[in-house]
Amino acid sequence: MNTPVFEWFFLWSAATVGCMSILIKQVEWSGTPVDVFISGNRIKTIGGCSSQRAEIVLDGRNKAILPTFHNAHNHAAMAYMRSYADDIELHAWLTDHIWPFESKVTKQDVYDGARLACLEMIKSGTTFFNDMYWFWHSTARAVDEMGMRAALAAVFIDFNDPAKAQEQIEQNQKLFGDRKQYSDRVMYQLGPHAIYTVSEKSLRWCKEFAAEHGLMIHTHLSETEKEVADCVAKHGMRPPAYLDSIGFLGPNVTAAHCVHLDQSEMELLAARGVKALHCPTSNMKLSSGKFRFTDAQKAGMQIAIGTDGCASNNCLDMGAEIKIAALLEKHFTGDPTALPAEAAWYAGTRACAEFFGLNSGIIEEGALADCMLVDLNNERLVPGYNLIADMVYSADSSCIDTVICNGKILMQNRHVPGEEEIIAKGRALREKLRR
Amino acid sequence: MNTPVFEWFFLWSAATVGCMSILIKQVEWSGTPVDVFISGNRIKTIGGCSSQRAEIVLDGRNKAILPTFHNAHNHAAMAYMRSYADDIELHAWLTDHIWPFESKVTKQDVYDGARLACLEMIKSGTTFFNDMYWFWHSTARAVDEMGMRAALAAVFIDFNDPAKAQEQIEQNQKLFGDRKQYSDRVMYQLGPHAIYTVSEKSLRWCKEFAAEHGLMIHTHLSETEKEVADCVAKHGMRPPAYLDSIGFLGPNVTAAHCVHLDQSEMELLAARGVKALHCPTSNMKLSSGKFRFTDAQKAGMQIAIGTDGCASNNCLDMGAEIKIAALLEKHFTGDPTALPAEAAWYAGTRACAEFFGLNSGIIEEGALADCMLVDLNNERLVPGYNLIADMVYSADSSCIDTVICNGKILMQNRHVPGEEEIIAKGRALREKLRR
Repeated sequence: MNTPVFEWFFLWSAATVGCMSILIKQVEWSGTPVDVFISGNRIKTIGGCSSQRAEIVLDGRNKAILPTFHNAHNHAAMAYMRSYADDIELHAWLTDHIWPFESKVTKQDVYDGARLACLEMIKSGTTFFNDMYWFWHSTARAVDEMGMRAALAAVFIDFNDPAKAQEQIEQNQKLFGDRKQYSDRVMYQLGPHAIYTVSEKSLRWCKEFAAEHGLMIHTHLSETEKEVADCVAKHGMRPPAYLDSIGFLGPNVTAAHCVHLDQSEMELLAARGVKALHCPTSNMKLSSGKFRFTDAQKAGMQIAIGTDGCASNNCLDMGAEIKIAALLEKHFTGDPTALPAEAAWYAGTRACAEFFGLNSGIIEEGALADCMLVDLNNERLVPGYNLIADMVYSADSSCIDTVICNGKILMQNRHVPGEEEIIAKGRALREKLRR
Repeated sequence: MNTPVFEWFFLWSAATVGCMSILIKQVEWSGTPVDVFISGNRIKTIGGCSSQRAEIVLDGRNKAILPTFHNAHNHAAMAYMRSYADDIELHAWLTDHIWPFESKVTKQDVYDGARLACLEMIKSGTTFFNDMYWFWHSTARAVDEMGMRAALAAVFIDFNDPAKAQEQIEQNQKLFGDRKQYSDRVMYQLGPHAIYTVSEKSLRWCKEFAAEHGLMIHTHLSETEKEVADCVAKHGMRPPAYLDSIGFLGPNVTAAHCVHLDQSEMELLAARGVKALHCPTSNMKLSSGKFRFTDAQKAGMQIAIGTDGCASNNCLDMGAEIKIAALLEKHFTGDPTALPAEAAWYAGTRACAEFFGLNSGIIEEGALADCMLVDLNNERLVPGYNLIADMVYSADSSCIDTVICNGKILMQNRHVPGEEEIIAKGRALREKLRR
């Protein structure tokens, strides 16, 4: 084989600086076959790059390139709890099943659970997730090794106990430093759980620490009627007003659920730039109520869709989630034009990327190379009148052939390297945690 | 290889009479690994059959055997219309998109569409569907060739036009004879579309013809508020009362949607033995309202779940449908224990089989060999605490490895013989029907 010197140099330099190049030939993009060139972690060129040399060349024929999903709310490691306890009244579910289970898990279990979650997300086309869970390092390590991107918060709960609060503060100060142990695909953020589990003082601390270091804050807000009623009883205000009164609300806050909001609350949250994380499956499964997507959008809120953790879903499939979001909105409003496919797709891809300042969730030159190739010959995408409608209403994970994150192939031909070992660990978890 | 004479005889006789035998070794059934022996079109033995000789031996390790889905309401051929028109107000959707499209299709298009639908159903674990569509023979031929089971009705619409009614009656009389051209997996039934498209005289004729020949009747009932209001205006009665007044209701009637029923109507339909076909995705997508599953069940109605056609879903995936049914019921009732996984699973498998007198939708000795093998090492079924909860809330089609119908393997290792040609025809449909 005759390999010119400059090509050897090219390959050597790519390996040395850790960047890759991928040429995807004749892949469908916006309905037209093009060549897409990925260099390093970016989409470098779309079209007109067929003569580019690349370390990896993928055949894009009969495939389309799409942005990957961005999962706006997750407790990823809870994949170890999938289908452990279902169809149970909320209080009994938490106190008799979820919390006793969680009290027994180790950091190794969380690592194994997070890897299982990452595997499932990759296989269903997700490359980014917004997370909150125990044993921060376990999930960080899993994300880093699996090649995904995530914003990870340690659960911050103090139950109004000052000693507990101090412990949580110190833990977060340490984690803030520890974040540098990982790739910049792992973003550290704060995770005050909710107003009913975190003291006012700790909420203020989170806000200040985030402001000081430019961090995002991940919390739960107005998920249940009880949360609202308890807040009114305790603070004389509903949750958004309470959080606003302590200066907590801002554009760096992502708030999961937002089910029980009135019109003025939506306007307040919109004015403060708070991001709503809509989790329709979780809200339906736990009978929590319904986030009013259309109304919130009209009020100016920014919204992204997430799966919540496996304990209340029971999967992390964003394709299923955006379909359920689109269906629930039409059902709830009585308007079959509500949350159309394009809007649901946006809320499952680009919206969440924007929350975190990521130029992903979109296929364009200069964007992060976080993308997937879907198989246009999968029966669920045929005849193929409208790819986005097909992706929202018809596709499932079997349509997704290849997943790329940060310019690296994480799945090809539906196989993720190392998946067999992750599954074996996941199956072993059942035996261990059943005991 | 030393093959005893009796083994040759066994293989010869199996081939001669057209029956098959399959031994599935060490497959999980109710949580325990067993050998399952299928002889002809029946599950012959579960356990204790490891020494059985069989034409085909399948490795069941790390797989579970489950009944296949039974899709209770479909217009299968409309797969050719997948994602052709979405997120549109109901009237404009029908008059500007669906009906003009349908006016152009040929019997060949319906055959190609039905094959695409069968392919999608097999790949997502469905072996039976209850159908109503134009060009009866096209769907019958597709079902027969693809090895599935279906109850097929020709759409019966006369718009109160006596000439049209006579034409439809003659067509059905002919189809009733024609049914013998196909395997007994193809069941002929009557398909009076709905009370607003079929004259009273024709409804009575359907009822009588069905009674005379022991046929099932497939119809739509109380799908929209407009249907109810129009019926009251025209007949002075709501739809169930009107149908009862003409003696139409009975245990051979399967009624799709049943969205707008009051308590007394549920009791009436239960008393008459009418079967409700619940299509949550379609009802949500078209903003038709909500079938009250829990109330209807308490009133004594028998209920099975279906996808409806691809134009209003946009897929035929029963796994997705039973999840959405379970979620919507919890959301609607505010009760997280409503429609639990086992009940949703039953409504997507066995319930519909019982409607049609089929001993399928269940894994037991003597039942029809309509079953699937799911891959317990699929990430969505791991850790694996509860297989039925996993199948309802977490699985997607990627978990399904093998599908068997009537003792014949239709899919193995996720491949259906001939699928490439069906896809090519489906893709060609797009080009043809776009013009």
